[in-house]
Amino acid sequence: MTTLNNQQFRLAARPVGLPKHSDWKFTSEPVRELADGEILVKTLYLSLDPAMRGWMNEGKSYIRPVAIDEVMRAGGLGKVIASKSPKFAVGDIVSGAIGVQDYWVGAASDKTAGFYKVDPKAAPLPKYLNALGMPGMTAYFGLLDVGLPKAGETVVVSGAAGAVGQTVGQVAKHKGCRVVGIAGGKDKCDFVVNELGFDACIDYKSGSLKDGLKEHCPNGIDVYFDNVGGDILDLVLTRINLKARIVICGAISQYNNTTPVKGPANYLSLLVNRARMEGIVVFDYADRYHLGVAEMAKWMQEGTFKTREDIVVGLEKFPEALLMLFEGKNFGKLILQVAKD
Amino acid sequence: MTTLNNQQFRLAARPVGLPKHSDWKFTSEPVRELADGEILVKTLYLSLDPAMRGWMNEGKSYIRPVAIDEVMRAGGLGKVIASKSPKFAVGDIVSGAIGVQDYWVGAASDKTAGFYKVDPKAAPLPKYLNALGMPGMTAYFGLLDVGLPKAGETVVVSGAAGAVGQTVGQVAKHKGCRVVGIAGGKDKCDFVVNELGFDACIDYKSGSLKDGLKEHCPNGIDVYFDNVGGDILDLVLTRINLKARIVICGAISQYNNTTPVKGPANYLSLLVNRARMEGIVVFDYADRYHLGVAEMAKWMQEGTFKTREDIVVGLEKFPEALLMLFEGKNFGKLILQVAKD
Repeated sequence: MTTLNNQQFRLAARPVGLPKHSDWKFTSEPVRELADGEILVKTLYLSLDPAMRGWMNEGKSYIRPVAIDEVMRAGGLGKVIASKSPKFAVGDIVSGAIGVQDYWVGAASDKTAGFYKVDPKAAPLPKYLNALGMPGMTAYFGLLDVGLPKAGETVVVSGAAGAVGQTVGQVAKHKGCRVVGIAGGKDKCDFVVNELGFDACIDYKSGSLKDGLKEHCPNGIDVYFDNVGGDILDLVLTRINLKARIVICGAISQYNNTTPVKGPANYLSLLVNRARMEGIVVFDYADRYHLGVAEMAKWMQEGTFKTREDIVVGLEKFPEALLMLFEGKNFGKLILQVAKD
Repeated sequence: MTTLNNQQFRLAARPVGLPKHSDWKFTSEPVRELADGEILVKTLYLSLDPAMRGWMNEGKSYIRPVAIDEVMRAGGLGKVIASKSPKFAVGDIVSGAIGVQDYWVGAASDKTAGFYKVDPKAAPLPKYLNALGMPGMTAYFGLLDVGLPKAGETVVVSGAAGAVGQTVGQVAKHKGCRVVGIAGGKDKCDFVVNELGFDACIDYKSGSLKDGLKEHCPNGIDVYFDNVGGDILDLVLTRINLKARIVICGAISQYNNTTPVKGPANYLSLLVNRARMEGIVVFDYADRYHLGVAEMAKWMQEGTFKTREDIVVGLEKFPEALLMLFEGKNFGKLILQVAKD
């Protein structure tokens, strides 16, 4: 067997603001021999997510930071191409924290990687990084367990055309809510209304978000699922109803700040409206992922639930692809295709 | 019967920043004759509260703003000195929204005033504006219904020596929590620890609040009851535990801002810690006030629950007395004594 060459993106420096090319180190090393209990996974697709920006910072968070010189953390799908473990067979498609590299090698039971098999016949592979993967689980459990939407209520979601937003809106529609998205650009807005069935979508890049919220949420806002933070969160806070629930899933507008995060100046609306703002981290729902996957897969089969992916090809494109997220350039769940399945 | 002269403080202008003397109009008018169903109440004590600053602003809130030229809204205790209603008899002591004036006249069943009888023998009258009144109910239901403290957890409360803070801390102690106060000045800190039985109190005016939180909350913070907002809220957010509950009761540090409210820059700690920030307005618990009063009155009789009032004498002192709240000059629940009972 020829020695395989494993190309990797490692964190060279902690970024200040947007990650620069010099914050990465592109390295390669030969893939080592497998020990007993180990598997070799060939990377097929990597999930590119806003949360990755947070992993690059020092400091306490819900997960340890990526260390300097460490391979950048990334979830993804791969194919098992060698196995000395009974857990996985050659040819299995697995999902787990592969990292930004061509190959992953290690114990089949490695907890950090957390590999599990997916069924390539049940759905196209990229769906397993979207609605049937972490973004989908984040959306599903964040909305239902923290947002607690009731039929007839108005649900607003920012980043509506993104991986999490697509699913939040469609799950809320399936639960009988009025759903209003917020997205950047006419194409994204048209997509979530015409393709995904949202009731409306406000293009924050053209026209007034304030007027849009007034027009499309005539009965106020009961649930706001926030992926962006910043000014949009602040404006939504002025339109919430009594006992509203705000799900804090992310704050992509603030991740690359070189100044302090902009806190929500209108947070006292929580007091006036006896409303709630609560954070969600998907890992807390791991023991129930199968329930979310089952319900959404059923809707997909019925044709009442769609997702869109934006796939960039080539491991070497990783640094520039990641930036697309922060510039709002991706249209759908952003995925890096590293190899053909 | 000689005509009584009713002196009143009316709102002359909406304040910018701290209320100035010129924002008030001091007027007097004769008390009119009673119609059938009406009562005449002589003001004894008025409750001075941070929330009053909010009532002076225009704009949607949980209660309508005080109108220009209207008598300033204030809760208080009074004595019924004339009655053409079977609901109250002359000599009854009543609690309700009397307003900043010597006398109140109107229908005994007026919903805005909301008068109800209190028993002057069961507790000294000022207690009915403190733990047994709105601040006490705010503290009791805000802590128990929104903060959801469990025995053994750490509860932190700001404005610890104030009307709400005193009660929050003592209720939390009764529920088996570790209680840490935040207050301004050694006297206030000594009081809540030595007199009220808090486990510790951090003097934010001397020394580092950050170090104090580290020292006195070695196991992190499970419940934070916030009366102040601003930098203190931001700092507490860096020390909260997984699934922490932050009760937003007020933000006295921000009420007189001429610049926008400072939003909590560290609000993403809610995400990292899957924590919650939720507002409370006391009126929502009106149908359960009697339960809170009963439990705290029992503790008072047992000697395990104390309160402190800071009483300023004289209706004419109203404008300067109100400012004491925003300068942290009151020590205990601030009350304006208008007449002797």
